[in-house]
Amino acid sequence: MSFADLHRPGDPFVLPNAWDVGSARALLASGFPAVGTTSLGVAASHGLPDATGAGRHAVVELARELVAAGLGRPVTCDLEDGFDTDPAAVADLVASLGVDGVNLEDATAGALVDPDVHARRIRAVKDRCPQVFVNARTDVFWLGAGNLDDAVARLVRYVDAGADGVFAPGALDAGTIQMIVERVGAPLNVLASPTVPRRRLAELGVARISTGSLLYRVALTQAVAAAVAARDGGPLPAALSYAEVQALVSGDSR
Amino acid sequence: MSFADLHRPGDPFVLPNAWDVGSARALLASGFPAVGTTSLGVAASHGLPDATGAGRHAVVELARELVAAGLGRPVTCDLEDGFDTDPAAVADLVASLGVDGVNLEDATAGALVDPDVHARRIRAVKDRCPQVFVNARTDVFWLGAGNLDDAVARLVRYVDAGADGVFAPGALDAGTIQMIVERVGAPLNVLASPTVPRRRLAELGVARISTGSLLYRVALTQAVAAAVAARDGGPLPAALSYAEVQALVSGDSR
Repeated sequence: MSFADLHRPGDPFVLPNAWDVGSARALLASGFPAVGTTSLGVAASHGLPDATGAGRHAVVELARELVAAGLGRPVTCDLEDGFDTDPAAVADLVASLGVDGVNLEDATAGALVDPDVHARRIRAVKDRCPQVFVNARTDVFWLGAGNLDDAVARLVRYVDAGADGVFAPGALDAGTIQMIVERVGAPLNVLASPTVPRRRLAELGVARISTGSLLYRVALTQAVAAAVAARDGGPLPAALSYAEVQALVSGDSR
Repeated sequence: MSFADLHRPGDPFVLPNAWDVGSARALLASGFPAVGTTSLGVAASHGLPDATGAGRHAVVELARELVAAGLGRPVTCDLEDGFDTDPAAVADLVASLGVDGVNLEDATAGALVDPDVHARRIRAVKDRCPQVFVNARTDVFWLGAGNLDDAVARLVRYVDAGADGVFAPGALDAGTIQMIVERVGAPLNVLASPTVPRRRLAELGVARISTGSLLYRVALTQAVAAAVAARDGGPLPAALSYAEVQALVSGDSR
């Protein structure tokens, strides 16, 4: 099944977002049909802030490592804003990665960019790499900066530019999700929510549910909890064994 | 306080082992006085097996990133077997890193090496970098390959070669730990144990308790659990917020 085929409005798949090759392998071993990356996780992993372009080198390196690892399932990468305003430069970058999909967001360093600038990046990528699933993200809700009409207008423009799917991260209520699905007419990706189950997102017409930075944030938090338990006592979070992790990266578990 | 000064037999400190800069920062923000690395975690993070030398590039890159991050507390790196049998090459490597401490183990790809070979590496590192705390590890117990006398003989040899401390990973009983402390006469590092609390290890004379690969194994396991919860329902493991992780890597939290 191609990566595009996984996107079925009304029957969303959960896309887990890895921060390294080990987490990608662990997630795929748990049955997920594809794996994404998290720009926060990848940047923070190298001690860098997210959404500023600082993580570019790390994001690109990880994309190449994931492709080289031959995971056997689709890989999609969060490329923040494409790391460039020049559409050709973004297309060159995407072409160089060999991934099955990319996320491209319409904000840079915490500020929304002109949707035309973003649409040109999307068009350049699709012209250059028609086989790559482009998930066009608007940060209208994420940045608390706009409203439904603004978000829909942006996403429609990105779909017109060739985007295969659209992504609206943020805490969206059911009505907003439903309106985006109806008015944009492309597979909609939302973030996993602790309060809205997958079944409800399915009813609303969502096609992809991604975990965003959650998995890296859980990883950090639980790793610290384990270290504190070793120091102060208390229960240890569950963990794979040393041999299980060795098997995972040696491909023995698949 | 220097890294060496943290090693007080009978009053062990817990050294948490990070797999990336983000986890190192998160651990230091939780009050640990120093941070180490985990060769399993670092290798697996790049999809490579541990203890084979495959992770060398990743281990070296992380050591340099941690030093460049200016964490303000000692950093010690797990260098497996030093990635070379040539003592001068190992000394060159350690000198190039700028870390406060290193672990060097006496096994390569799952087999114990001649203790003289290992002792020469330790002597070369200490001659070249006297300020670096060399934690000499024997894999006698880890590999299930030997006995107390063999382990003690090896560790005494490494201390004679200049090692500042010794490390005996594996599931050691209290009597074994106590005998190593008495017969080797250098600060002893053991792995954190789910069954033996820090207080008991203190009574036995241990100087350092490290978490080894545990934190990365917890990170993978709990990240997968969070992804599965997003897919199938169920409780999410606790997680730092997006803003908290951004603050952590921006140094705002310290």
